[in-house]
Amino acid sequence: MARWEPNAAERLTEAAMALFEERGYAKTTVGDIATRAGLTERTFFNHFSDKREVLFAGSNQYVARIVEAARAAPATARPLDVVMGAYEAMDGFFEERRPFSRRRSALIAAHPELQERELVKMLMVTAELTTVLEERGASPAAATLAAQTAGAIMRVGFEQWTRDAKDRSLTFHLRAARRQLEGIVGAASGSPSPAAASSRARDTRRRR
Amino acid sequence: MARWEPNAAERLTEAAMALFEERGYAKTTVGDIATRAGLTERTFFNHFSDKREVLFAGSNQYVARIVEAARAAPATARPLDVVMGAYEAMDGFFEERRPFSRRRSALIAAHPELQERELVKMLMVTAELTTVLEERGASPAAATLAAQTAGAIMRVGFEQWTRDAKDRSLTFHLRAARRQLEGIVGAASGSPSPAAASSRARDTRRRR
Repeated sequence: MARWEPNAAERLTEAAMALFEERGYAKTTVGDIATRAGLTERTFFNHFSDKREVLFAGSNQYVARIVEAARAAPATARPLDVVMGAYEAMDGFFEERRPFSRRRSALIAAHPELQERELVKMLMVTAELTTVLEERGASPAAATLAAQTAGAIMRVGFEQWTRDAKDRSLTFHLRAARRQLEGIVGAASGSPSPAAASSRARDTRRRR
Repeated sequence: MARWEPNAAERLTEAAMALFEERGYAKTTVGDIATRAGLTERTFFNHFSDKREVLFAGSNQYVARIVEAARAAPATARPLDVVMGAYEAMDGFFEERRPFSRRRSALIAAHPELQERELVKMLMVTAELTTVLEERGASPAAATLAAQTAGAIMRVGFEQWTRDAKDRSLTFHLRAARRQLEGIVGAASGSPSPAAASSRARDTRRRR
């Protein structure tokens, strides 16, 4: 048995992030991470299945909390409000770890081999939320549209949150992204002829 | 060199689809497919890299055509209209192969191991269309929101199209899904309090 090490997971996470930033994800080994943290590889594997999981350790907890928040929405809430409310409920979760989230996002943006895992996580969240909406009585089509649209809003809002020099909350950025989406979806109703769309596009620019 | 076989790709595709339907994807081998088509395994591999690719043979052509249609949209068209117009431009492509598309969709729905590949194809289309929108001057946030939202509309509209007993066009179903999305996104503006959302939800139901 490995002996107990105080804050081992935190020390390993910090060591891994620093090494990924300094030399890149591909060139960092589990041995490097353990050495930098002053721990053994065995201790590493007591906490993480591989080096990639250092960046995805909280994923299952994250998905579970979002699903729980969506399930707790009032029975009368509309599908998009259910899902957006669930993402907004993660505000505190992310606020607590804003510096970590920023470094993590930058690492994922810089490493295509990490983007696939992040995408799978987002798809998992969207799939779970689609199921929650169907359980709440939405049709499969409405549940898919609402969960996928909310996923797009979360993607853009979260990205803006990680880059915000003014440190405004995730909720602030989610609401801004939702308003932006409303503008994109709402201004044209139905599918107009190209001529109508062009004229509307000119109107929209004039108004801005 | 394999000798030339008339319609080899079509015969192999039909044989593969029939076998996937009869005994399932996992239990069908390339040898089975070639035998059923009256051809050799060598001929199979002249046309497809593996059995999965029988169902994804047109993917690159499909992506290229959508991107081309999006690029050809009027310069003044708004982002969501650009992308929806590109999906609508595929109407004839799908109409020509409606029976094939239906069988293919049913096979994918029945085989989780095929869903991942289909998802990758859809993500590839969305990523390409996001790039086209950015090239046309949309911000990264607007391009992401428009392309992802259109992807959700396409997903739902296409699904309805494959199941339509009345054989209405893909464009018909895309426009119906877009109107449904407008209802989901548009009725509530901004992110209301739960009480406001509840009262609006009651109003919406009363109106239906």
